[in-house]
Amino acid sequence: MQTFIAIFICTSLWSQNDDSLMIRRIADEILLHGKAYDNLHDLTKKIGGRLSGSPQMYKAEQWGLQTMQASGANKTWLQECLVPHWVRGGQDEAFFNVPGKKNLARLDVIALGNSMGTGPKGISASVIEVSSFDELEAKKDQLKGKIVFYNHRFIDTYVRTFAAYGEAGQYRGAGPSRAAKYGAVAVIVRSLSNSTDNNPHTGATRYDTTLPKIPAVAIGLRDADRLDSVLQKSMVTVSLKTNGHFLPDTIGHNVIGELTGSEFPDQVITIGGHLDSWDPAEGAHDDGAGVVHTIEILRALKALGYRPKHTIRFVLFANEENGLRGGTKYAEEAKGKNEKHIFALESDAGGFTPRGFTFGGTPEQLKKVQGWIPLLYPYGVYEITDGGGGADIGPLNRTFKTPVAELSPDPQRYFDYHHARNDVFENVNKRELELGAINMAALIYLIDKYGL
Amino acid sequence: MQTFIAIFICTSLWSQNDDSLMIRRIADEILLHGKAYDNLHDLTKKIGGRLSGSPQMYKAEQWGLQTMQASGANKTWLQECLVPHWVRGGQDEAFFNVPGKKNLARLDVIALGNSMGTGPKGISASVIEVSSFDELEAKKDQLKGKIVFYNHRFIDTYVRTFAAYGEAGQYRGAGPSRAAKYGAVAVIVRSLSNSTDNNPHTGATRYDTTLPKIPAVAIGLRDADRLDSVLQKSMVTVSLKTNGHFLPDTIGHNVIGELTGSEFPDQVITIGGHLDSWDPAEGAHDDGAGVVHTIEILRALKALGYRPKHTIRFVLFANEENGLRGGTKYAEEAKGKNEKHIFALESDAGGFTPRGFTFGGTPEQLKKVQGWIPLLYPYGVYEITDGGGGADIGPLNRTFKTPVAELSPDPQRYFDYHHARNDVFENVNKRELELGAINMAALIYLIDKYGL
Repeated sequence: MQTFIAIFICTSLWSQNDDSLMIRRIADEILLHGKAYDNLHDLTKKIGGRLSGSPQMYKAEQWGLQTMQASGANKTWLQECLVPHWVRGGQDEAFFNVPGKKNLARLDVIALGNSMGTGPKGISASVIEVSSFDELEAKKDQLKGKIVFYNHRFIDTYVRTFAAYGEAGQYRGAGPSRAAKYGAVAVIVRSLSNSTDNNPHTGATRYDTTLPKIPAVAIGLRDADRLDSVLQKSMVTVSLKTNGHFLPDTIGHNVIGELTGSEFPDQVITIGGHLDSWDPAEGAHDDGAGVVHTIEILRALKALGYRPKHTIRFVLFANEENGLRGGTKYAEEAKGKNEKHIFALESDAGGFTPRGFTFGGTPEQLKKVQGWIPLLYPYGVYEITDGGGGADIGPLNRTFKTPVAELSPDPQRYFDYHHARNDVFENVNKRELELGAINMAALIYLIDKYGL
Repeated sequence: MQTFIAIFICTSLWSQNDDSLMIRRIADEILLHGKAYDNLHDLTKKIGGRLSGSPQMYKAEQWGLQTMQASGANKTWLQECLVPHWVRGGQDEAFFNVPGKKNLARLDVIALGNSMGTGPKGISASVIEVSSFDELEAKKDQLKGKIVFYNHRFIDTYVRTFAAYGEAGQYRGAGPSRAAKYGAVAVIVRSLSNSTDNNPHTGATRYDTTLPKIPAVAIGLRDADRLDSVLQKSMVTVSLKTNGHFLPDTIGHNVIGELTGSEFPDQVITIGGHLDSWDPAEGAHDDGAGVVHTIEILRALKALGYRPKHTIRFVLFANEENGLRGGTKYAEEAKGKNEKHIFALESDAGGFTPRGFTFGGTPEQLKKVQGWIPLLYPYGVYEITDGGGGADIGPLNRTFKTPVAELSPDPQRYFDYHHARNDVFENVNKRELELGAINMAALIYLIDKYGL
């Protein structure tokens, strides 16, 4: 018995060592010959923001297809889907009267994604500030004809900033319709951010279609504090002008590359990020990072001559930001073809230094994946937490119960840039980006080898 | 026996819970009312770079003293020491002839700290490139009258970038004298960095006093690659002009604040960072972050009404960069007064998101400290590794065997900024900075409560 145990331990150590050598090779390939940073440069600087339906979206699709081919995919294709086509329609503007001052003060605003414009004449109305929906309800009789200012702060004491985003996100999502219900004519939302600057952050709002679709903008944090401060002392009138509207749905595509499996070609592992991004910047962290992580894993595995046992699909999803049509289509087609999806991994939390993964699967699967942490530890991943996986692979998880995971980079800076004009290439660090790709590639290698 | 164990576990859990509540209070205080970021703004923007002996050094000392007082120190004082007074003396310049081109090409260089200038006429000589000291030795007969170009790359595959710095640092430190030994007239060192930009990085060199003190500059990475590329094809002459020299040693000070211990006032815990910084920038990460971490821990403990059992000293050390005279003086005086130093903690690895601590002490002490990781984990610290502690508290460790530790922030971006012109306030993130202070304060709280 003792002998048997000894042999088992030796085998296990040998195997562990084998895996750590392979992961070291992956890391060296990416740190020494990586293309993720250069690819991100091209995507952000040569194409830029790429909202669904925009000319840049089509340019990005072609770029993605060609880059996947150049990175060694066995086959590549575009998977068609209908995407919403919201356009900003011009410059968003807002001014407010500062009591006792002659000139109007400008507010730095950006219309929320999917929001309807004010019309060419704009909207002027006095402002009612609320910090929560509870306060909105308490003031519901005062809202008719007013602009509601949701000044709900990010909870700064949440070290995991995505929790603060989740908590505050309801005001951007549901705030306009909840104010419209009581006759408000427009909404200003404090940006979902804990930054120190004044950049406003856009992002999708969701109208209740039974209520008037009132215009909605986000405001930078300094302007929000300023407006709050003035409102403590006096009435304030804000003039808003926005131009958002929808054009008819249009055709977009998931961009897909594949390394075909040598043993189980019919069993699919998916890796992805989303190709679309909001328009005010370059979509560098959201989600250029996820796009180039995805392509880099393909490139590195191919460069190392790795032949996967399972088919690995590299997917640049369409329309995550304002519709999730790409992720939905991917799962629908997989279901239609009766594909077998054994795992899916997403990167949509930025190109920052990695700390872990979130994981959505059974307790047994979670335990198995957590057993690999020692192999990832040298590259920065030290935890795999229960719950999660990204938005684009959610439909796959719901359709097939496919276990899913998402890279968890350090989250402190993410909401400094998220959906704001400073989400640009310059704010991504090459090595942090590469370490994300390394840990994702290592996890994929382990799942391809050992299954889940 | 079982009953006893059960009681022990209960007490232990209760105590753990008590500690986690106290650490949560520290975190909330720093995240909601923190002054570290504002203090860093004042230190970097109102004072700036503050090399030993410079007018800014004196301004920073006064600022430090006043800020410690305003943050609630029971007493504050300046501890005098002699510091070296090296001055850059003007703009560093370098040009090289590109074969086949008419105009000289500029190289972006910065003289190494402590290096001697070229004199007003400058130095022009042809360049010999080496990538290591082995190659230098192999070429020793060709070096007379030449400029040696140490083009030694950072090892990009080291995920822990300080290891790459340690490995490459020998060329900055010993490179000039080792080249002078064979008759070289000047030295160009590839910057100790893995950045993607071309900023040159200064830092101290150490002359062998038995050899000629030849001028030495650092060069940005793109220029280094460019020079290397041209040297593959042809001879290159470089013209250098630098103006570095020493003025007589002058008086500097450690700035010290104290919270006096309620139970063991004669037993000292030290927390510190260094106040001096290189001149090309603002010393924001190196080591403005450590300075404001130190002051913030004082402020937060005081704001929470915490009364330490042991005396806690908050020290802004003089002259870490080119002499370590402050840290040396601090240990000397402690020895002279026969003080008892039970622990010292430093922050000198930047204001980035924390990952852990390094620890220099006995295996038993290390084990005890590692037992507290679950309490720090919610704030980002997940490892405490053996070996280390900072430069300024090294003399304390050598004098008294005082256990020492240093904050380990994420190291991927540190050498993008280290000793370069972009080590400025704008490259420090408020929340990452605050999380460093939180974890340091928590560790101090635990050591004050439980000893080591």
